[in-house]
Amino acid sequence: MVCKKNLSEWYHKVLDEADITDSRYPVKGMLIYKKWGLFVIREMQRYLEKMLEESDHEPTLFPVLIPEDTLGKETEHIAGFEEEVFWITHAGANKLERRLALRPTSETPIYEMFRLWIRSHNDLPLKIHQSCAVYRYETKHTRPLIRGREFLWNEGHSAHVDAKDAKENVEDIKRIYERLIKDLLCLPFVINRRPEWDRFPGADETYAFDTLMPDGKTLQIATVHNLGQNFSKVFDITYEDIEGKHLHVFQTSYGPSFGRLLAAAISIHGDDKGLVLPPEIAPLQIVIIPIVFKKSGSEEVIAYAKKIKEELDSLGIRVKIDEGEDRPGSKFYRWEMKGVPLRMDVGPRDLKEGKITVVRRDTGEKSQIGFDEIEGIKTIFKDISDNLREKAESRFRSRIFKIENIDDIKGKVGKGIIIAGLCSGGVCSERIEEHADILCVNETVAKCIVCGGEGREIKIAKTY
Amino acid sequence: MVCKKNLSEWYHKVLDEADITDSRYPVKGMLIYKKWGLFVIREMQRYLEKMLEESDHEPTLFPVLIPEDTLGKETEHIAGFEEEVFWITHAGANKLERRLALRPTSETPIYEMFRLWIRSHNDLPLKIHQSCAVYRYETKHTRPLIRGREFLWNEGHSAHVDAKDAKENVEDIKRIYERLIKDLLCLPFVINRRPEWDRFPGADETYAFDTLMPDGKTLQIATVHNLGQNFSKVFDITYEDIEGKHLHVFQTSYGPSFGRLLAAAISIHGDDKGLVLPPEIAPLQIVIIPIVFKKSGSEEVIAYAKKIKEELDSLGIRVKIDEGEDRPGSKFYRWEMKGVPLRMDVGPRDLKEGKITVVRRDTGEKSQIGFDEIEGIKTIFKDISDNLREKAESRFRSRIFKIENIDDIKGKVGKGIIIAGLCSGGVCSERIEEHADILCVNETVAKCIVCGGEGREIKIAKTY
Repeated sequence: MVCKKNLSEWYHKVLDEADITDSRYPVKGMLIYKKWGLFVIREMQRYLEKMLEESDHEPTLFPVLIPEDTLGKETEHIAGFEEEVFWITHAGANKLERRLALRPTSETPIYEMFRLWIRSHNDLPLKIHQSCAVYRYETKHTRPLIRGREFLWNEGHSAHVDAKDAKENVEDIKRIYERLIKDLLCLPFVINRRPEWDRFPGADETYAFDTLMPDGKTLQIATVHNLGQNFSKVFDITYEDIEGKHLHVFQTSYGPSFGRLLAAAISIHGDDKGLVLPPEIAPLQIVIIPIVFKKSGSEEVIAYAKKIKEELDSLGIRVKIDEGEDRPGSKFYRWEMKGVPLRMDVGPRDLKEGKITVVRRDTGEKSQIGFDEIEGIKTIFKDISDNLREKAESRFRSRIFKIENIDDIKGKVGKGIIIAGLCSGGVCSERIEEHADILCVNETVAKCIVCGGEGREIKIAKTY
Repeated sequence: MVCKKNLSEWYHKVLDEADITDSRYPVKGMLIYKKWGLFVIREMQRYLEKMLEESDHEPTLFPVLIPEDTLGKETEHIAGFEEEVFWITHAGANKLERRLALRPTSETPIYEMFRLWIRSHNDLPLKIHQSCAVYRYETKHTRPLIRGREFLWNEGHSAHVDAKDAKENVEDIKRIYERLIKDLLCLPFVINRRPEWDRFPGADETYAFDTLMPDGKTLQIATVHNLGQNFSKVFDITYEDIEGKHLHVFQTSYGPSFGRLLAAAISIHGDDKGLVLPPEIAPLQIVIIPIVFKKSGSEEVIAYAKKIKEELDSLGIRVKIDEGEDRPGSKFYRWEMKGVPLRMDVGPRDLKEGKITVVRRDTGEKSQIGFDEIEGIKTIFKDISDNLREKAESRFRSRIFKIENIDDIKGKVGKGIIIAGLCSGGVCSERIEEHADILCVNETVAKCIVCGGEGREIKIAKTY
């Protein structure tokens, strides 16, 4: 395997060897999801959809095509996306009367329907979600799962009677995404309220979930937008309140990128041996390797391995016996690369003693458990997740720096997230942006690191 | 509700009132899948994917866009699809160097990758599947779920060392689709080997699964194609055999339409009260209606309903208590419309006796069970599925007619499937096709119903 120090080379090799994606598809920025990658994405999707539905979101699926006039209704919105839209102009040999866009995001088509679906205050809040692919013609350098022209996500959309209710939904969604990112994927993140110039086109506020990749750059993995009444006014989405007045709804929209979440999980948890995955999302949770040196006695070992597998099957664990012809060493190598959280080596001695040799992928730790202790295996799964989460958290925390002077920026930039101060002067802001992007401008008062004047606390970083 | 005799009106009303789809989306032939419809489709998808993966299919997901040169490689294939392809010509303000097609089906992009993935006989058979949407610019009258320009399906693709192995896969897939259609959806069907002029473009053989709608027209719900070496020769997909020779693979491809399967389940099982669904695919399997006439005593009835719900929850049954303000009658009406297989009415008397009043959606049958008999509820589910399946089967069989003379066609056409005879003369074939479509030409010898000459057995019907 290749050293993770060279992150980009390591990353591409893992995507390839662990059957996550294939990037050789003949359209730039589009890739094929293979078995291993698709599995993890489907697990995230299911976990997220369940939480959204428990919080009263209705599942829906909208068409991928948006009429040009619908997409263009909200002027700020279309201004933000128009350079990135794929356009359908022909069908068969016919030129279409109006162009159709491949959805870059679905606010506009969904809100066309919200206008029809919402009549009275009894219809509110209306919350829907869909898991789908969206399309953006990225002109920047594309990277598998991180920046592509087709990407998989879940998008949520809501309508509310007032700003307060919309704001509460923003908070609910933050908690739901936190559970997805931290509990399921064991990833650290920070929520940054994006500065005005970096908000979602058409939103009043954008909250972004940023994680930190091993190369010190931040990766935006999810966003939650408070849309105010910007879209409801343009799409004329109104409801009748108790007194019979017709009012425009308040809206929010939100989405995590499954591809980026997968990219972050791969990059942050992985090591020089390849993929490391939290057990909950691992396509295969346990691989059993029968260790047999000579033909005699091998049948008994295989039978023992099968007995163990049956027990694990009955616990709902995803398990496989690797009965291949190759040597144990190359089996170890393969399943380590593919990030299987636990390996069980079973040889004649384990059989005799009624034991199982258990090797953890995350720590390499080897231990023995009794056959009758199999039921406790989920405790080890939990330990693995906790360990991955804590390790990632502590690395994350160790790469948050505070600086007081612009001269200190060079030593820190590209190594993590820098907390600094910025005044309202455009010149100082430009000086900082020569080095890195501004993730957020907080309310906290702080001294400007450029001119020393009074300003606000900011976070800056190199970003993907 | 509206009488099912007027099938089209009834169908649209059910789609709308049972929250299956919304057809008001502003792009012709494209619709919004709503909660109830999406649920049933996801259940089918899961059931099918599980069977395919148990039969060694790897899940994948390919991009929706296909380069023009890839789509056009196999000349028969592109000839069959070119009038139906949506073309992307621009991205942002830029004209693309080469046009990109929205996939109408994925043989060509997938086989570009098969060429890279297949090296030796050890890589075969290669079987993959994906659940996705495909796009066809239908010029015929569109109908929700039945004929649209965007539709949801699962497509499978395989490569084999020889024709025999490919043929075996065709048989495996037929069995898998049979389980999906008959076991899960409780629908009758017949497999017809399509005549040459009606095969999938690029296939040597096409087997179609046809069901029969209540209006007497057949609906093609799935197809399985034997592609021979047509694609492998054009895409140069070869493998090295044991002797080191390089040979072209043999291929098959196949797919059921989830939309059409849903349309068939709705139309075939439904009745004048609305949707009727087999319990396995019903979004809600049981609705509990507390019957309370006065305020006093209502709390105890609600508590009893909750106790029943808990019990059902623990059995993994999808259940809900309708505690709404409206009268029981309108609740009955609503849940009947939405096809909930079982209703449980619980009133003070049921509570006192420790009983539950159970009403079946399929038969309207009312019975009482004891609280301690809840565990047996799955037997009733099975009875409902069996009943739906048998009723549909027997109606299906009763609408297969045999005719010996062209004059008899008029009385039967549009009422079901007609078995007849046809010689090889083009004139006789045209006479028949004035009335109906030819679903298949079998090997069985039969007298031509037009000229009386020697011919083959055929099946004909009006088709969707």
